[in-house]
Amino acid sequence: MELKFEEELLVIPGAESQLRLHRIADELSRRDIDAVLISDHANLFYVTGRIFCGWALVWADGSAEYFVRRPSTLHGDGLHRIRKVEELPGCLSHRPARLGLELDLISWSAAERIRAAFGEGVEIVNASAAMRAVRSVKTVMQIDLMAESGIKQTMVYNGIAKLYREGMSDIELQIEIERSLRLHGCLGKFPVSGPDMEIFMANVLTGENADVPSPYDFAMGGAGLHPSLPVGADGTIIKPHNPVMVDANGNFTAYMTDMTRCFCLGEPPAEAARLNTLSADICRAVSEAARPGTAAKDLYELALGMATDAGAADYFMGHRYHAGFVGHGVGIEINEGPVLAPRSRDIIQEGNTIALEPKFVVPGLGAVGVENTYAVTADGPRLLTLSPQNIVQFD
Amino acid sequence: MELKFEEELLVIPGAESQLRLHRIADELSRRDIDAVLISDHANLFYVTGRIFCGWALVWADGSAEYFVRRPSTLHGDGLHRIRKVEELPGCLSHRPARLGLELDLISWSAAERIRAAFGEGVEIVNASAAMRAVRSVKTVMQIDLMAESGIKQTMVYNGIAKLYREGMSDIELQIEIERSLRLHGCLGKFPVSGPDMEIFMANVLTGENADVPSPYDFAMGGAGLHPSLPVGADGTIIKPHNPVMVDANGNFTAYMTDMTRCFCLGEPPAEAARLNTLSADICRAVSEAARPGTAAKDLYELALGMATDAGAADYFMGHRYHAGFVGHGVGIEINEGPVLAPRSRDIIQEGNTIALEPKFVVPGLGAVGVENTYAVTADGPRLLTLSPQNIVQFD
Repeated sequence: MELKFEEELLVIPGAESQLRLHRIADELSRRDIDAVLISDHANLFYVTGRIFCGWALVWADGSAEYFVRRPSTLHGDGLHRIRKVEELPGCLSHRPARLGLELDLISWSAAERIRAAFGEGVEIVNASAAMRAVRSVKTVMQIDLMAESGIKQTMVYNGIAKLYREGMSDIELQIEIERSLRLHGCLGKFPVSGPDMEIFMANVLTGENADVPSPYDFAMGGAGLHPSLPVGADGTIIKPHNPVMVDANGNFTAYMTDMTRCFCLGEPPAEAARLNTLSADICRAVSEAARPGTAAKDLYELALGMATDAGAADYFMGHRYHAGFVGHGVGIEINEGPVLAPRSRDIIQEGNTIALEPKFVVPGLGAVGVENTYAVTADGPRLLTLSPQNIVQFD
Repeated sequence: MELKFEEELLVIPGAESQLRLHRIADELSRRDIDAVLISDHANLFYVTGRIFCGWALVWADGSAEYFVRRPSTLHGDGLHRIRKVEELPGCLSHRPARLGLELDLISWSAAERIRAAFGEGVEIVNASAAMRAVRSVKTVMQIDLMAESGIKQTMVYNGIAKLYREGMSDIELQIEIERSLRLHGCLGKFPVSGPDMEIFMANVLTGENADVPSPYDFAMGGAGLHPSLPVGADGTIIKPHNPVMVDANGNFTAYMTDMTRCFCLGEPPAEAARLNTLSADICRAVSEAARPGTAAKDLYELALGMATDAGAADYFMGHRYHAGFVGHGVGIEINEGPVLAPRSRDIIQEGNTIALEPKFVVPGLGAVGVENTYAVTADGPRLLTLSPQNIVQFD
């Protein structure tokens, strides 16, 4: 009777679901894990294409079962309706000997409750790294969705110069960018894995604020509006010839692109323009070098070497505080693998989608540099963030 | 030399800090816990008035030490600079016998890493409930900050009728409300404890979408724009005589108020107006009954009883799906204690700040009802959300 409110659990096509489940299964087999029980929202979304309140159990043979608490409107193959996790083991035809949980992501209490529900005889192991490895390599469908985000993000960025009004502060400009993003379909949510980063929609930096360190793991800092969210714009009035760096939410399809561009009221200073061009050059060189099989740490060294050769090492990835990476995977969340950092053990793979952000802080003036998102393909880098890379003057 | 970038760790005044630390200490003593090690952002913010990357250790004698990874600019009494949690125990003059952790909030891996760092001889216990109990009772300063949020949120709500333009969808209206909130100083971040809720800025509901269940623990649902964030506005065009419910972010001071009001294009239907008035009546009655010592579950029964007496039980807190509560504590996060629900064991205390949201879904038309935030005082309820409670017609 109320059938129109019923919905298939799986939002992604069956073949795409099978592909993703088999990627998880391969990773589980490699690590000798019999099944992984997923409840982290980003991982649930990867597996089903939706967020629900419950769990997905993916077996090492590539099959999956779904345990749904809410909403009650979902139906589909392999779906069990349960009220609490204690009911879950009883739904299974057999128990896994080694059960993977997202121990880096779910709370201690949630993990121990699952352990107790399965009881003795089921060994609990950490499957966080397995899921992170799976998600660092995107499918064609995922890259297409990121490309769609990149186009929409580009449209918004190409209109930013028109949003400036005389006398604006960094946050006033950011609010107009937020509105434009939302009107173009940005979902707003800026998903981050773990507790080390949080942000609202964008980081807009100008002037001395660009040099204020933040507690978070982002490339750039900024004091923020309030000590409860200490990152980004702090109300600084935008001054002539001070670059304004915009790093704003590219989540239009639940697959995010990550793009940074710089703007300026009037002509940017020569040093700012030089370092911005250097940043674009580093992006191009690193993206070309990011072939399957390359060590991610070598890409960091390439970027740092180019900055050093240009006499800009002191300003590279910050001035008062230097971020310890130059790029990161991106997709469902902003901080996926691989990580391009000095001690990274990640190896670049076809299907990685990488945000490169070689940025420079020019003390007293602001931050400059570009950030681009690339898909790693067999034929070289595919650029997903398409706005012009020069420092654009406000209209 | 770079002294202007140095900052005191404690943002809150010393006396306020002492008051909060002693409240934690009392709760620890009551539970026979020697110290609590805090890293959850909301709890860190409660203790220090800021977010940082690190830990606060609060002892049962009311003293505290701070262990800071980032930013390096912080200084102050009792501050230790460490790179990783393994260095923490070595900084202490003595070890706690029973150490409380936020086991409901931090990851299994983070908790076990702390357990290993302290080694044998230190018993790890769950201090999540202790911190939740402490934070459910606000200080005078916290209530003042909530009152300030309530005034700003009221100013925004009083301007919503002017934001409507002909032909707007729910999300287009929401985007203009978001902009107005931000221009009035809303911090954007909508803090939620735990993984069971997520939202971006607001829930704007109209038409049939008001009856679509969500996976989250909110009072109301809605399909949302995308299965990656399945709650709230879904692009429904606002129709004449269909109520539009607006439940939008009241976080202006890092202490949130929670307010809902309804709007309508033209005259609202009589049944919608009747149920909206009933909601306001329930708010008034429940807030008056919410005296220190009252059982929170009795307040839920009072609300349900009034809805039932008015013949509106089928629409109370949803129609297709009924939320199992009518009010909740609010402050740093949107889902604090006490909870006004049938099986709640919470007892109302002076200093609780409670959002009451007796809402009704009118099938096919939308949702109606008000939500108000009240502080519980010795003299009765103090209303913090001050907009007119009737269904307001768009200009």
